[in-house]
Amino acid sequence: MSIATTETTSTGLQYRVADLGLAESGRHQIRLAEQEMPGLMSLRAEYGESKPLAGARIAGSLHMTVQTAVLIETLVALGAQVRWASCNIFSTQDEAAAAVVVGPNGTVAEPAGVPVFAWKGENLPEYWECADRIFDWTSEATAAGESFVGPNMILDDGGDATLLVHKGAEFERAGRVPEDAKTDSHEYGVILDLLRRSLDRDPQRWTRVAAEIRGVTEETTTGVHRLYELARDGKLLFPAINVNDSVTKSKFDNKYGIRHSLLDGLNRATDVLVGGKVVFVAGYGDVGKGAAEALRGQGARVIVSEVDPINALQAAMDGFQVAKLESVLDQIDILITATGNTGVVTLDSILGLKHLAVIANVGHFDDEIDMAGLEELAATGQAEKVQIKPQVHEWRLPTGRSVLVLSEGRLMNLGNATGHPSFVMSNSFSNQTLAQIELYTKQEEYPIGVYVLPKRLDEKVARLHLAALGVELTELTPEQAAYIGVPVEGPYKVDHYRY
Amino acid sequence: MSIATTETTSTGLQYRVADLGLAESGRHQIRLAEQEMPGLMSLRAEYGESKPLAGARIAGSLHMTVQTAVLIETLVALGAQVRWASCNIFSTQDEAAAAVVVGPNGTVAEPAGVPVFAWKGENLPEYWECADRIFDWTSEATAAGESFVGPNMILDDGGDATLLVHKGAEFERAGRVPEDAKTDSHEYGVILDLLRRSLDRDPQRWTRVAAEIRGVTEETTTGVHRLYELARDGKLLFPAINVNDSVTKSKFDNKYGIRHSLLDGLNRATDVLVGGKVVFVAGYGDVGKGAAEALRGQGARVIVSEVDPINALQAAMDGFQVAKLESVLDQIDILITATGNTGVVTLDSILGLKHLAVIANVGHFDDEIDMAGLEELAATGQAEKVQIKPQVHEWRLPTGRSVLVLSEGRLMNLGNATGHPSFVMSNSFSNQTLAQIELYTKQEEYPIGVYVLPKRLDEKVARLHLAALGVELTELTPEQAAYIGVPVEGPYKVDHYRY
Amino acid sequence: MSIATTETTSTGLQYRVADLGLAESGRHQIRLAEQEMPGLMSLRAEYGESKPLAGARIAGSLHMTVQTAVLIETLVALGAQVRWASCNIFSTQDEAAAAVVVGPNGTVAEPAGVPVFAWKGENLPEYWECADRIFDWTSEATAAGESFVGPNMILDDGGDATLLVHKGAEFERAGRVPEDAKTDSHEYGVILDLLRRSLDRDPQRWTRVAAEIRGVTEETTTGVHRLYELARDGKLLFPAINVNDSVTKSKFDNKYGIRHSLLDGLNRATDVLVGGKVVFVAGYGDVGKGAAEALRGQGARVIVSEVDPINALQAAMDGFQVAKLESVLDQIDILITATGNTGVVTLDSILGLKHLAVIANVGHFDDEIDMAGLEELAATGQAEKVQIKPQVHEWRLPTGRSVLVLSEGRLMNLGNATGHPSFVMSNSFSNQTLAQIELYTKQEEYPIGVYVLPKRLDEKVARLHLAALGVELTELTPEQAAYIGVPVEGPYKVDHYRY
Amino acid sequence: MSIATTETTSTGLQYRVADLGLAESGRHQIRLAEQEMPGLMSLRAEYGESKPLAGARIAGSLHMTVQTAVLIETLVALGAQVRWASCNIFSTQDEAAAAVVVGPNGTVAEPAGVPVFAWKGENLPEYWECADRIFDWTSEATAAGESFVGPNMILDDGGDATLLVHKGAEFERAGRVPEDAKTDSHEYGVILDLLRRSLDRDPQRWTRVAAEIRGVTEETTTGVHRLYELARDGKLLFPAINVNDSVTKSKFDNKYGIRHSLLDGLNRATDVLVGGKVVFVAGYGDVGKGAAEALRGQGARVIVSEVDPINALQAAMDGFQVAKLESVLDQIDILITATGNTGVVTLDSILGLKHLAVIANVGHFDDEIDMAGLEELAATGQAEKVQIKPQVHEWRLPTGRSVLVLSEGRLMNLGNATGHPSFVMSNSFSNQTLAQIELYTKQEEYPIGVYVLPKRLDEKVARLHLAALGVELTELTPEQAAYIGVPVEGPYKVDHYRY
Repeated sequence: MSIATTETTSTGLQYRVADLGLAESGRHQIRLAEQEMPGLMSLRAEYGESKPLAGARIAGSLHMTVQTAVLIETLVALGAQVRWASCNIFSTQDEAAAAVVVGPNGTVAEPAGVPVFAWKGENLPEYWECADRIFDWTSEATAAGESFVGPNMILDDGGDATLLVHKGAEFERAGRVPEDAKTDSHEYGVILDLLRRSLDRDPQRWTRVAAEIRGVTEETTTGVHRLYELARDGKLLFPAINVNDSVTKSKFDNKYGIRHSLLDGLNRATDVLVGGKVVFVAGYGDVGKGAAEALRGQGARVIVSEVDPINALQAAMDGFQVAKLESVLDQIDILITATGNTGVVTLDSILGLKHLAVIANVGHFDDEIDMAGLEELAATGQAEKVQIKPQVHEWRLPTGRSVLVLSEGRLMNLGNATGHPSFVMSNSFSNQTLAQIELYTKQEEYPIGVYVLPKRLDEKVARLHLAALGVELTELTPEQAAYIGVPVEGPYKVDHYRY
Repeated sequence: MSIATTETTSTGLQYRVADLGLAESGRHQIRLAEQEMPGLMSLRAEYGESKPLAGARIAGSLHMTVQTAVLIETLVALGAQVRWASCNIFSTQDEAAAAVVVGPNGTVAEPAGVPVFAWKGENLPEYWECADRIFDWTSEATAAGESFVGPNMILDDGGDATLLVHKGAEFERAGRVPEDAKTDSHEYGVILDLLRRSLDRDPQRWTRVAAEIRGVTEETTTGVHRLYELARDGKLLFPAINVNDSVTKSKFDNKYGIRHSLLDGLNRATDVLVGGKVVFVAGYGDVGKGAAEALRGQGARVIVSEVDPINALQAAMDGFQVAKLESVLDQIDILITATGNTGVVTLDSILGLKHLAVIANVGHFDDEIDMAGLEELAATGQAEKVQIKPQVHEWRLPTGRSVLVLSEGRLMNLGNATGHPSFVMSNSFSNQTLAQIELYTKQEEYPIGVYVLPKRLDEKVARLHLAALGVELTELTPEQAAYIGVPVEGPYKVDHYRY
Repeated sequence: MSIATTETTSTGLQYRVADLGLAESGRHQIRLAEQEMPGLMSLRAEYGESKPLAGARIAGSLHMTVQTAVLIETLVALGAQVRWASCNIFSTQDEAAAAVVVGPNGTVAEPAGVPVFAWKGENLPEYWECADRIFDWTSEATAAGESFVGPNMILDDGGDATLLVHKGAEFERAGRVPEDAKTDSHEYGVILDLLRRSLDRDPQRWTRVAAEIRGVTEETTTGVHRLYELARDGKLLFPAINVNDSVTKSKFDNKYGIRHSLLDGLNRATDVLVGGKVVFVAGYGDVGKGAAEALRGQGARVIVSEVDPINALQAAMDGFQVAKLESVLDQIDILITATGNTGVVTLDSILGLKHLAVIANVGHFDDEIDMAGLEELAATGQAEKVQIKPQVHEWRLPTGRSVLVLSEGRLMNLGNATGHPSFVMSNSFSNQTLAQIELYTKQEEYPIGVYVLPKRLDEKVARLHLAALGVELTELTPEQAAYIGVPVEGPYKVDHYRY
Repeated sequence: MSIATTETTSTGLQYRVADLGLAESGRHQIRLAEQEMPGLMSLRAEYGESKPLAGARIAGSLHMTVQTAVLIETLVALGAQVRWASCNIFSTQDEAAAAVVVGPNGTVAEPAGVPVFAWKGENLPEYWECADRIFDWTSEATAAGESFVGPNMILDDGGDATLLVHKGAEFERAGRVPEDAKTDSHEYGVILDLLRRSLDRDPQRWTRVAAEIRGVTEETTTGVHRLYELARDGKLLFPAINVNDSVTKSKFDNKYGIRHSLLDGLNRATDVLVGGKVVFVAGYGDVGKGAAEALRGQGARVIVSEVDPINALQAAMDGFQVAKLESVLDQIDILITATGNTGVVTLDSILGLKHLAVIANVGHFDDEIDMAGLEELAATGQAEKVQIKPQVHEWRLPTGRSVLVLSEGRLMNLGNATGHPSFVMSNSFSNQTLAQIELYTKQEEYPIGVYVLPKRLDEKVARLHLAALGVELTELTPEQAAYIGVPVEGPYKVDHYRY
């Protein structure tokens, strides 16, 4: 893809998706998903008239799935303009992307939706060009007869959009883009190339873009981690709301989402029975907890690894064996990484696994598994990579054994399945939507820094999802509320409460 | 399809599959499945040289999946000739069917495998013509210079192949095929039509076919039930081995298989989060038990219905609410039928469900759910059937609500997913293979009747699957064996032991 | 104890219990237990008037607990006369024994209940004298002016009462009691002594006793095993009903009972947290399955051993590691035996365990664990046995480590807790009661042999327990019943169905 | 009890326990518990020589169990002097109290341990006199030739010791103890009486006591809540460490402890099978989560109530029905309160329960259940309270039904069982010990206020318990530590991380 290949409709709607013809199928799925996303639909009902996001120009970088389509259309219903890219090269559902471009009232011939730049199976240069596209609001400015250049809000997942702005502005301040260092990842090289071309074209673009942005809302552990580092180092350019640490995000999306989608990914990718198998789960954070629960629920024998003694003790108390990967390497049938760290599964470990062991990552980045090491083996003829089907590869190793790697080591629940189910995402995306409203409408309350949503909004998100599950909430009597010192209507807990 | 459209290779290999070009993809999956099917691979190792099935001509009617491909090629490795059809209109994996026709050593240009007549999405007349095809061994007879007309063994799943022979022979004895009675199902009408044409063409065909058959091995609850009825009524034409009631079939395939594939089917078909939802499981037999366990493992709240007080008490003791469907209709998000009975979900019940409730069947037949009732509503314009994607339909009901029906009410784990995983099927198919050997090689020990496999063979099947799961078996000392009165090497249990 | 120390009331009621003063406390508990035993209470309501057991003289040998008290009083309500002993030296609840002797309408001063010979902590000679007592019905004969000498029915648990009659009669036929062989257990020596004294006193006593007995109902795996051996060898003296293999016994009492009482025993005996610990369960039959489920439910990591490949495969599919005891000896915190076999935990294994590992048996006999080996070590000064509290002993081993042994290696759920809870026992005891009625009232249908209860009675027992759990049973329509070929009111399953 | 009845040994050791003769049995149990409390034993090893608590005079108010004995003796090993009372009238294990008084090196004749004032079954005046006793250090002052009057540290559980000092000092400042208001609880009246007598005797006692105290460490939700209120209102007299909110306390003791001890209490108190029953758990905080998990692990059907929508959503996602108590009242077999709030089970609810439903509280205070309402019914002859056994009462209600109330509505896991097991308490008590060291040795770092322990100490506590469970911890590489921005040796998480 190059920028030139982007489509533009007669009404000026830019987009790049796999096939607009998939829109009808996507619309069906969006309609079903709306039923499963009571949080977002309630927010449409509550704010659809007052339109608190009127005037907001949101650059969204988040897996372009059916659920995200419901989020996008919720943001639009609340008054926002939106441009969208995916945050993972494999995670786009092409029918959802098409349906969003066509829009609920458009047709394939006359799309009337939202600009989306995403398809399943982008390569890395394409991926970063798509990210670039969501920051180019010149067509919207022209249509509105205004002079802005980019978005005034970012909605981020993993921090790539935020990274692009920060790096772009940083290099523009420096007047140059550094050479690609040997130690840099391949992907970082791609980013540098893109920014180098940008600097050549327009040495102030990212500086101007950054200046227009009121804030970012970010929903992953990894992206949030980057934000706290930027804030700590005084480099953060605009305020940020850490949506990840809303309880209704981290303890729901991360845990219950993966509990669902891990099995979905494993099942679609392989024909391997999970029951009776030894599954190793690296990491017992929220994602690891959800993974371990799902696997046990299928009758697997789960072994967990941890670096944090508290989480390790939790895993043991939950009945799991806790061991180092190397100690149990020869017993493992399926190896899941869920750490958010680097180099968790080394090439040595891969070489020690059983024949046709399955390796899959549900942490955010692909460097949990030493894919680079595997690729180097292949480059030197010591290993062979055989595609079994898309996103499922057999790596034939010099040991004579093979391993099966899912989604090239990237998020398998998105690459091999369709990501987290709608109901879970409705929680996360309700947080995103409320966070966008907070940041956009209460600028004065959020100077540059990283914030979590107030507990009353967190409780609100939960509340929006109870009826759909048939939950009857008990109400405190005034005496009971006084006894524990909280308002009858909440919030009910101290900030450090852990749920 | 008509018989005329069957392909025939230059070497005389007949087949009808969706696309031979899928063979390479199918072969990849077969190769991976072999790793997960240690029982079948062990039988190839044990019997590959002695070829106990030499001379056997097996007509197979069983879901044409990747796992079945490994079974078929195991039967061939043991000396048999095989013709194959699927036993469900949606259950064929087209790439597996293609790979079996091409064979491990053939090519798409020169297929050298096994005659298969199966594709995903057959209609009912096509389905029964395929069933007919596996009984026509004239090309094999010609090639061998012999005079047989059909198979000498049946390998059956659900009893359709056995039914065809018995009905065919019955009508030939009567000299006529009865008229289609009003009370008959649509499918039975299709069968009558086929047999009427057969009777016109050749009034002794099925009588001759039946005479050549030495026996049938059958693996479903439903098919076995038919066999016991035939035997009770003195109508059974040849001996049968009830493979379903091998412990390593009924307590493994039925329970652990569904535990795996139910979620797989639900996930592929819908984007509905299972966690937190109310799921109703009709029936707490082995299939229902596996279903309930899987759903609980995903955080669903499961409500079970039962007619048998013992199974009902088991469900209660396992922590499930046990209720009648009508009592909890308005709470249900997902409704699973697993009874093997008819009319379990009536049209009235369907009309009372929540909007967009999911209905899916994992019992053998499609009449657990009143699909006919739905179709009649549609025929009279009172309901609308909207295809969301293949095998997923939204039924818009006169109540203004919709329900989602998976796989047209047929086996959703096969229609919406790929059926039971290889490892589980390896147990069932090892039983099938051993049963074929028993019946084919020990005719004198099996006069007409219905038999279960001897316990030593059941234990053998289990034993073949232990190493792959890293199971260390404890061995009895001679003193211990004497103490409990069993041989050191088994069998270890009395016949009525329930596991 | 000697026979001479038995108490006799002024009305001729013989008994030997710990303390009649405990009767009030026992009666309270019996009253609560009746609420939890709907099966027995329903049978009282159904048969209390017709009294089908009128004339029955039942010798009962079964743990003298609160639940057994409800059974005894049910038998009496149905017309029977009863004499009772416990079938385990530690399993008597003294308050229950007292309450049964006093009876619901008697007082401590004027007991008006049933003759019971049982207290917690009998020694072996006492235990077997108690067993002897339940066969001496001379006082009842005198009171009735009749000439019988013993019971006409046995209700047995573990087969000790049945053993005594068979051995007594066998030695009387032989005219002598064999010398105690070196290889015999200590307990067998005690039995021989008792029978030798009996032979001296009355060389035809057991022969006469045996002749009066119409049958026995037996409820343990072990006792049933003995009965089948006697029947196979042509030595069985009267018909027997195998109550153990009623589904509502073996799949309920054995599994759900132990699921409850194992934890109860562990908790009362030790202060050891089960969560996070490695627990080894020897045997994955119904008892082992219940144990493993309970332990997992508490967050233990469970490792299972098995000799039967089918059960081993079940354990693996249920997510448990399956290993030999010796392979994992150094990881075990708690070791549970549930095999019904001998020599499962050898002295060598005991010596290899971790310091203060807990050893407990829930199989029927105490020779699962090499207690004799431990005692020999102690006898030779190589080990020391320290009582921590009753039924909990620390064995200080020559290795410098200790192990904790519960209930001297006997049934810990009875020795350290109060056995299976009332609700579970209501199932087992309803089977016992129905079996007593069958055998007593339908002698002609049961020639000498071993029988299981007809399935309709098994289903009846289940049915009697549903309402108490709030279970709503679904009723078959006539069409559905016809479709699966069963009566609307059951029985619903073929005999070989495994539940 | 009055102060006069306190025993004093010849060496001046004061105490009041049930029976010193129980000391040997207590010592056995303490010895076994030490094996299960690796945290405390490691702290003895680490600090036994440096004695950081030398000079500390600790007034302890915490359930006087076997585990607390190990804590007390750890504090002594670290140099402290200690006086101890229980914090619940039923929670003392008399043999543990005796063993602590006798001490590891003393004898019953010459006790050489620690002053303990606690026995199982105190009445309320006795309870508060015992609390008073731990603040009277005159004998220690005399022995040391010093002039202090009380402790310099408090170790508290539930806040009663802290309350006494604060109320005593408050009333001394006011010069009078207020009259007992009608709205006050009976227990508060007892406290007022005690403080009134104290004010009469010595109008400055509590003022002087308060002045000497350097700080308090508190481990319950309820006690911590009181501390934050005091701090908020500016009434807190000395700094406090909130031990409850250490992860290794709240997420371990509260959750895994109750998972163990709830079943223990239910089993010892009643003979009620948990499997198959409907159990209502009020509250889904850490305690409720542990309770629900334990009950499900036993096959109960659990219904949860919640007031907080986030916790309610968690319960639903974990598969539990969430309902108001009143909505399901007639289904409940067992009712557990775990809220920490008041009036959760009203008299109306009690009257609506099934016959012989069990009611039990595992929240901190006894006013979760309207015991006062029940007692008033009894006082007016409308209800009858029948003791089944100690701590188990049948309340016969005017409806004709009864309920069983455990431990008079107080903590049933302590009243009916022995509280949380040693291993769990080792976590909590290691936190207590480290908190005592922090407050005592770093006064300058802790001005008046409420603090949680630093995360590194929390992780340390976890680390001390891993080896005992066979946990292998994975170590970060320096690259990995840098990647996620933490030290290799921890702490590993941001403060708001929820585990």
